[in-house]
Amino acid sequence: MLFDCGEGAQRQLMIAGLSIEKISNIFITHMHGDHVLGLPGLLMTMSLQNRRSPLRIFGPIGLRQFIESCLPMIFHQPTFLLDIQEFVGSDLITSGKNYKVYSHRVKHSVESYAYCFKEDDRPGKFNVERAEELGIKPGPLRSMLIRGESVKLENGRVIRPEEVVGPPRPGVKIVYTGDMGNTPGFEDFCRNADILIHEATFDETMSSQADELQHSTCVEAAKLAAKTGVKNLVLTHISSRYGDASIILEQAKKFFSNVQIAEDFMSIDIF
Amino acid sequence: MLFDCGEGAQRQLMIAGLSIEKISNIFITHMHGDHVLGLPGLLMTMSLQNRRSPLRIFGPIGLRQFIESCLPMIFHQPTFLLDIQEFVGSDLITSGKNYKVYSHRVKHSVESYAYCFKEDDRPGKFNVERAEELGIKPGPLRSMLIRGESVKLENGRVIRPEEVVGPPRPGVKIVYTGDMGNTPGFEDFCRNADILIHEATFDETMSSQADELQHSTCVEAAKLAAKTGVKNLVLTHISSRYGDASIILEQAKKFFSNVQIAEDFMSIDIF
Repeated sequence: MLFDCGEGAQRQLMIAGLSIEKISNIFITHMHGDHVLGLPGLLMTMSLQNRRSPLRIFGPIGLRQFIESCLPMIFHQPTFLLDIQEFVGSDLITSGKNYKVYSHRVKHSVESYAYCFKEDDRPGKFNVERAEELGIKPGPLRSMLIRGESVKLENGRVIRPEEVVGPPRPGVKIVYTGDMGNTPGFEDFCRNADILIHEATFDETMSSQADELQHSTCVEAAKLAAKTGVKNLVLTHISSRYGDASIILEQAKKFFSNVQIAEDFMSIDIF
Repeated sequence: MLFDCGEGAQRQLMIAGLSIEKISNIFITHMHGDHVLGLPGLLMTMSLQNRRSPLRIFGPIGLRQFIESCLPMIFHQPTFLLDIQEFVGSDLITSGKNYKVYSHRVKHSVESYAYCFKEDDRPGKFNVERAEELGIKPGPLRSMLIRGESVKLENGRVIRPEEVVGPPRPGVKIVYTGDMGNTPGFEDFCRNADILIHEATFDETMSSQADELQHSTCVEAAKLAAKTGVKNLVLTHISSRYGDASIILEQAKKFFSNVQIAEDFMSIDIF
């Protein structure tokens, strides 16, 4: 899964040693150049690599026209099925074997969305020691308990799942904002995220510019993270006016301690 | 002057410490993505930098449609005058204070051009010692001689320019091919170039693929350089199948010794 695709994304993917072929879904937050101009080149490279598997690209209206008019102008015809899915509004965008991806409309100068990747909740932990004590042998009885069903032992005793299985463990939740200004009602979308990747174009002294241009300050992002029980906050899309981002980080830390500045090739372990 | 603008060109310009603002002319060889996909982002950055001076972009038909349809789709309106000049055929493309730029149509799968940057010839070297011997004092008489006019000294003697001024020194000539297959009649365009920047997509063992795809081998490029009195040959556009380009260089050297492989950030002193 790739979220946004600015100019040079394919180059950074190659340097990072990530497989371009394995990308099956691309999610575009909005149609500004710094979020989409890497798409035509990435699609070209996929074809050069003779890709055969379909690729789905999700994004706001305008995405289809951009791709479908751009490619013929550079004489490019993909070697694979390109499934462009434009959507409008906050919704469930796609789901896979054990995850879902949601959109949330956010305020910006053009139609713009945040995305949430949510892994399905996983079953609770099976307490092997307690099972042994109760005389539940490895096999079908244990599987039934893990699936949430009660079982009857040979001695007639009925065991309820909660006696040996812990509470369901919530799946990973990652929220990525793209570009956004202050968006009322966005809190629920971020609630308890393991990682919130939030734009922080400006520092707090430029909050009026942030309002005007419908971008965020680092302090707005940090306050949101604190308010919604987010575990890790990663700030990105920092204006090039900040030679290094130390002021952005310092200001954010006053409101939320577990914060870092996104960097090229950064990799984050979730557990 | 920028010749071609692939994806990421602006990033490399920034890393190289070159001023994007100072680019006044861009020359596009053909409309394949790896030669033009850096244009929209470069134009966006120019506007972000609040550029006011006009920019001229030269290229084949299709260039205008690409730029003029791409920019509105990413909601971009340049802050400066964008003067897109499409041309057809081999011609004088533009000229400046002391240079000209020419195009030469070359064989490729789409309409494609090579470019020649030619500095005007400079006056011959003034022989100060000889002038002193002849009694020509610094001043207007010397200027006339440099301009190619004969002068009469106080003693009545007439001095012709060739007595004190060397032959005109040819201006710098640089030829850049873009993508091309074997193009009859291309030799004159390259004649005596100080630098020939020639595509070499393939090595000699793949000459049939080169023919089929209308690209060049390193040996074709080297033979052309040898035949046309080129001083330096720089090979570029080497297929990614060559992990390093040593085979390309080795094969080329058999036919032309003063050859090198282009690399990012390479800078070449002409004198």
